[in-house]
Amino acid sequence: MTVEIICVGTELLLGNIVNTNAAFLAERCAYLGLTCYYQSVVGDNAARLTETIETATKRSDLVILSGGLGPTEDDLTKETAAAVFHLPLVEDPISKEHILQFFKTRNRTIADNNWKQAMIPEGSVALENENGTAPGIIMEKEGKTMILLPGPPNELRPMFLQQVEPYLLSKRNAAIYSQMVKMCGIGESDAETAILDLTSSTNPTVATYAKTGEVHIRVTAFAENEEAAAKLVKPMVNKLKSRFGSKIYTTDPEITLEQSIVELLQLNKMTVTCAESCTGGMVAARLINAPGASAVINESFITYSNKAKRHYLDVKKGTLKKFGAVSEETALEMARGGCISTKADACIAVTGIAGPDGGTEEKPVGLVYIGCSVAGKTIAKECHFTGNRAKIRESACAEALNTLRNCILEYLSETRFT
Amino acid sequence: MTVEIICVGTELLLGNIVNTNAAFLAERCAYLGLTCYYQSVVGDNAARLTETIETATKRSDLVILSGGLGPTEDDLTKETAAAVFHLPLVEDPISKEHILQFFKTRNRTIADNNWKQAMIPEGSVALENENGTAPGIIMEKEGKTMILLPGPPNELRPMFLQQVEPYLLSKRNAAIYSQMVKMCGIGESDAETAILDLTSSTNPTVATYAKTGEVHIRVTAFAENEEAAAKLVKPMVNKLKSRFGSKIYTTDPEITLEQSIVELLQLNKMTVTCAESCTGGMVAARLINAPGASAVINESFITYSNKAKRHYLDVKKGTLKKFGAVSEETALEMARGGCISTKADACIAVTGIAGPDGGTEEKPVGLVYIGCSVAGKTIAKECHFTGNRAKIRESACAEALNTLRNCILEYLSETRFT
Repeated sequence: MTVEIICVGTELLLGNIVNTNAAFLAERCAYLGLTCYYQSVVGDNAARLTETIETATKRSDLVILSGGLGPTEDDLTKETAAAVFHLPLVEDPISKEHILQFFKTRNRTIADNNWKQAMIPEGSVALENENGTAPGIIMEKEGKTMILLPGPPNELRPMFLQQVEPYLLSKRNAAIYSQMVKMCGIGESDAETAILDLTSSTNPTVATYAKTGEVHIRVTAFAENEEAAAKLVKPMVNKLKSRFGSKIYTTDPEITLEQSIVELLQLNKMTVTCAESCTGGMVAARLINAPGASAVINESFITYSNKAKRHYLDVKKGTLKKFGAVSEETALEMARGGCISTKADACIAVTGIAGPDGGTEEKPVGLVYIGCSVAGKTIAKECHFTGNRAKIRESACAEALNTLRNCILEYLSETRFT
Repeated sequence: MTVEIICVGTELLLGNIVNTNAAFLAERCAYLGLTCYYQSVVGDNAARLTETIETATKRSDLVILSGGLGPTEDDLTKETAAAVFHLPLVEDPISKEHILQFFKTRNRTIADNNWKQAMIPEGSVALENENGTAPGIIMEKEGKTMILLPGPPNELRPMFLQQVEPYLLSKRNAAIYSQMVKMCGIGESDAETAILDLTSSTNPTVATYAKTGEVHIRVTAFAENEEAAAKLVKPMVNKLKSRFGSKIYTTDPEITLEQSIVELLQLNKMTVTCAESCTGGMVAARLINAPGASAVINESFITYSNKAKRHYLDVKKGTLKKFGAVSEETALEMARGGCISTKADACIAVTGIAGPDGGTEEKPVGLVYIGCSVAGKTIAKECHFTGNRAKIRESACAEALNTLRNCILEYLSETRFT
């Protein structure tokens, strides 16, 4: 089945917002095994919207539209789509009641034009909107399907995941099962090379996604029921596990790298602290983004000046003088000092030159040292990152989390086997 | 002049990446006064690409394409676009030399297919690519223009800003001048209401952009030369200044809020420290994202536990016991304590409940107290933020920076006039 995505909104045509809805819908459609050949963006204009919808319904089986379902006169998506399918609008009592309740629980007055949102194309299915008043709509005619979704991502996403996906799967008469193998400490091209022989698989499919310092591989299968689909996914995930080993930090799509580290620490009743210079709090901020971080982090330092490195982390004056603030020796002392001063089991330290100034021939912009101390054993590594100040700091932060995770795993494996 | 944007790439159709090129190009085109009615995304497929380009060139004056200019056989944008304009490809000696030098300076071997990138449609203009080997291309035929740009943002963006914009302005026979009025501490709808009478202006135009905790207003004018355009912009910017006053932190598009705060501190030879609980380093990380932050920040604390709040910031045990860690009293003591223990002139403190757990009826998720101390004067404010953990922390961080800036400004105005 082919799908086409149309996002409606002047704010997209003006570049005021980035089209994250298109990326979300495209990713979910690919996940559901639908083939997408076209995406488009058009404004709230009846003639141009009609043209775009007509072209899309001619060349694709399914057309998903987002945006333009609001209560104002500018919002034309529903009216235009219904006209293309020659369907009159009729009042949907359930949507009407939902709008009533939505305003009532928020103590807000309903404007007359809000009732417009309770009108749906005749014979279509209304989708409940848990975070707004505009219902989504599924309408079918002569083998073609249109799905209309509200523009705000917090309304569109749950509606698609909870209502549209089951509908599309039931249409396909199939169940789907998927696992997300998330890795750190490996580059995208290395990961792709390592699974070159697996990517031609069609059921399950294997798809790679890259983000700073991480690679995610999604394994997805279709079958008559979820259990059978899971049976197709499992051997492929096992292959990935044997190829990538401890680089994999989770197979749960909801778990982030920082979450997996916080859980690893919590499980082993360990605490961590951060000692950051150039990343200036980014590593701690990411760890603390994991719910439950309070169980493993009590405090953390941003030691930007040499004096602060000496005062809070006991970095030696001689070390700073001889090797400089950006050096392996300083990174080692920062990591050790962080553990000692806070009595934490682990400390991750970062010191580097994020630029744009401060680089020299010997120590160029992008040079970062990461130190890590776990239960008395301390290591440091030299890294070279590229890009602007923000990119270098982001890369350093990702590599620090990867290093922290590796050092904890190494410590745990040593203590378990000795 | 109407413009249409076509982004070429399977990774966009699969939702592997978000289409930031479309947003960038759309925003720049709006800035240049071009009207955009359509954007589309299509894969590397000759038939579908031909169809999309033909439709676009029929209905728009200018078509900007991004992506598909690489050296592989999959990359078809240039060949397809040239075919639509019935132009043969010819070798461009300057592009050939650029490719040669690009590989030479990087000590890399040139593959045979790289020479494909030196071929351009006959009579077209090649645009130099400072960060890659694919030249951009401007081609005109019968009153229609196509501009082909490479897909990687670090190649596309400088090429557009430095080469395409001057070309489009020269076509228009106009100069452009723009200022970006950036504000914090005001909501988008309040800002829009305050300038309702100004938005109908056509030269200069006034456009509003919202981001977390900030509102940016761009004022843009066209005239026969830059000086004349600037003269049109100036009175409008002055109107905005008189309406929004000290909420405006800059009129320079390149300056961020954190940069403006760092510069304000540096100018007044002041230092700052952060004492963060729920934001866990985000405030410090943003300040340190400003180049030159080392002149105003020596150290900063993440005091996540009660014990850390007591140890590093001298928050009283009784305060924590009586009012709790998330309270106005604790925020005040954190801010005061941060200044005292580091001898910094200013301290910004954040303590709150980011969720998903930890909320109570009395202190719900989203409750955040921000404390700020500048030169001995300390204030605290209660805030209520909505959204998930990440969103609450991001909002708290933005509000903390706004509060810090306001307290510094207040201190400076008091010391100047007394």
